[in-house]
Amino acid sequence: MEITEIEGVLCNGIKEGKLGLGIVKCRGSVVGVFTKNKIKAAPVIVCSEHISDGKIEGLIVNSGNANAFTGKEGIEDAREMCRIAAKLMGCYERDIAVASTGVIGKRLDMEWIKEKASIVFSEIGNSVKHAENFAKAITTTDRFLKKAHSKKPKISAVAKGAGMISPNMATMLCFIFTSASYDSGELYEMLKQAVDNSFNRLSVDGDMSTNDTVLLISTGREKVKKEEFQEKLNEVCLSIARQIAKDGEGATKLIEVYVTGAVDENDAIKAAKAVASSLLVKTAIFGNDPNWGRVIAALGYSGAEVDETISISLEGAGEVKLVEKGKPLNNESIARKVLENSNEIRLVINLHKGTGEGYALGCDLSYEYVKLNSEYTT
Amino acid sequence: MEITEIEGVLCNGIKEGKLGLGIVKCRGSVVGVFTKNKIKAAPVIVCSEHISDGKIEGLIVNSGNANAFTGKEGIEDAREMCRIAAKLMGCYERDIAVASTGVIGKRLDMEWIKEKASIVFSEIGNSVKHAENFAKAITTTDRFLKKAHSKKPKISAVAKGAGMISPNMATMLCFIFTSASYDSGELYEMLKQAVDNSFNRLSVDGDMSTNDTVLLISTGREKVKKEEFQEKLNEVCLSIARQIAKDGEGATKLIEVYVTGAVDENDAIKAAKAVASSLLVKTAIFGNDPNWGRVIAALGYSGAEVDETISISLEGAGEVKLVEKGKPLNNESIARKVLENSNEIRLVINLHKGTGEGYALGCDLSYEYVKLNSEYTT
Repeated sequence: MEITEIEGVLCNGIKEGKLGLGIVKCRGSVVGVFTKNKIKAAPVIVCSEHISDGKIEGLIVNSGNANAFTGKEGIEDAREMCRIAAKLMGCYERDIAVASTGVIGKRLDMEWIKEKASIVFSEIGNSVKHAENFAKAITTTDRFLKKAHSKKPKISAVAKGAGMISPNMATMLCFIFTSASYDSGELYEMLKQAVDNSFNRLSVDGDMSTNDTVLLISTGREKVKKEEFQEKLNEVCLSIARQIAKDGEGATKLIEVYVTGAVDENDAIKAAKAVASSLLVKTAIFGNDPNWGRVIAALGYSGAEVDETISISLEGAGEVKLVEKGKPLNNESIARKVLENSNEIRLVINLHKGTGEGYALGCDLSYEYVKLNSEYTT
Repeated sequence: MEITEIEGVLCNGIKEGKLGLGIVKCRGSVVGVFTKNKIKAAPVIVCSEHISDGKIEGLIVNSGNANAFTGKEGIEDAREMCRIAAKLMGCYERDIAVASTGVIGKRLDMEWIKEKASIVFSEIGNSVKHAENFAKAITTTDRFLKKAHSKKPKISAVAKGAGMISPNMATMLCFIFTSASYDSGELYEMLKQAVDNSFNRLSVDGDMSTNDTVLLISTGREKVKKEEFQEKLNEVCLSIARQIAKDGEGATKLIEVYVTGAVDENDAIKAAKAVASSLLVKTAIFGNDPNWGRVIAALGYSGAEVDETISISLEGAGEVKLVEKGKPLNNESIARKVLENSNEIRLVINLHKGTGEGYALGCDLSYEYVKLNSEYTT
């Protein structure tokens, strides 16, 4: 189900080389979660200002240039993007949300944006093709489009991920649309919970971007029980987070780390994140090497309560126990086969300390990661 | 100046494929700093126990197997290593220090160790060749031997580094010998300061090993002023740390990050570490790409007080300013040349917030890192 299948959502987009521009028309309520990086990109500053009243008429997004570290001029450019969209939609500048992704430290080409915005808006619509145009327009190094939805209640999300995905929030843009109606306080609480359980569990390379933006936009045409909506919103966000991990720059395998038996949930999440973020674990999994010693080392420095009484299993195309309560089981050759045959890996860890459970998401680290990131700009 | 040039230090070593064994005979005082990982390797546990009285007769070290996550049997093996060395030297087991490095989760081959220990000890001596044998015996994926010294006061250090070098302490073994005489309380304070200003500023991949060990051993034959000794000890440790960074797995460039103008020293160190640890900065430098936007992003999430008023310069074979008080200077093409022609890069950052200064060490991230770490064990 595309974002255009949410009643009241129209969109379109264009991608020309590295540059893209997308526009969404979507009257309704809006809440957002943004990067915690102290250096915030201009669109993040302008967008949080514009959505603070909880109202939205539309959204303008560009890719290829992050409009970050661009000073007062950058802020002015972000406002200008909103003015361009507002003029096209016939609404107030402050009812437009804005986002950017791409290279840091370069001024936007406002001529290009103005010209493309007219073209994009002139053919705005609600077909599957329109949704795809928008999805493509916001991508950078993404290898596939990231979408997730729930049919009942109606939720549809589109995202841009890959690279610079941090333990605290991903370098990502994610726009979630729903017809379910809530006040913006309720929407914010629900978005916060969903983000905490998905994007904030995600680590590609530990870097945190200046532009991270997740918006939840409600066109308010449906009454839905909060519990029901929260459950589906969580699922949608987790699905997007998994897709982003899978498409981590150069990633060949999705890594999910489930920790049980921790003293509490916090410790479990801490332990899971340390394993999912460890470069040594990531490179081992890339090499199909069931090197559980590196998992142990990561658990040891995670800050969680651990001792040597640890159990580790590997799940993928098959299941295999590697360590049982601290005893190595010498199943490495089977484990290697499981790794070779799986592009989704689950590491299941029991710390045998208590009842705390938690998970984290990551991906392997490949030659391609180095290639993409050593050859990106300038 | 080799470790054998410290009066009272005799050594020897052997390396056969991935396995190595080294022995040092060195009566004197000893202090040590060990990994903060909660999962400590057996030799770390045994060694800290043995050096707790501040006395040492000798040292036995093996490479190729970390004797980590090996349970009670591993502890027993580490004790057995000490017994073997003690028997050869005719001293107490508890006056022997022990260290291991290599693969996690495998029992030591005690037969091999016992056999080689006799051979190594039977030809122990104090020539340059003996020092080199020991240095080689303790290496794993090291591409070059790591040594540093001071002639006056006499200090000589030998180390094993590469890989799993973390912001908190390196996966490293470092043995520092001196003839300067202090009580072990004084020695410990001085070692702590030297380690804080060197190894604890170092990040290769953010992982923290189970085996990190730095020992400072004094044969006590010389009286030296504390200030003088501290200064030289700091220099020796910083030199070893720089060598370890330079030899980070797959590294092609040493990265030194100097932060000035922070609100205080802590903030400066925090900012410097975030930049030196950023995978995106590391891959950019590997690709000779002066992508200062990634430096800005890392400063932003470092936790240090920052705003956009940042200056960044690059120093190597030449010097070039990239950003002046938040203004990009468009010197990327010159900067690229500097990067291409340098294997030691200094990023000099001014946060324009105060007078705090600090530095951190790291290295770039290359294809070779991925290769080494995806193809290591099992």
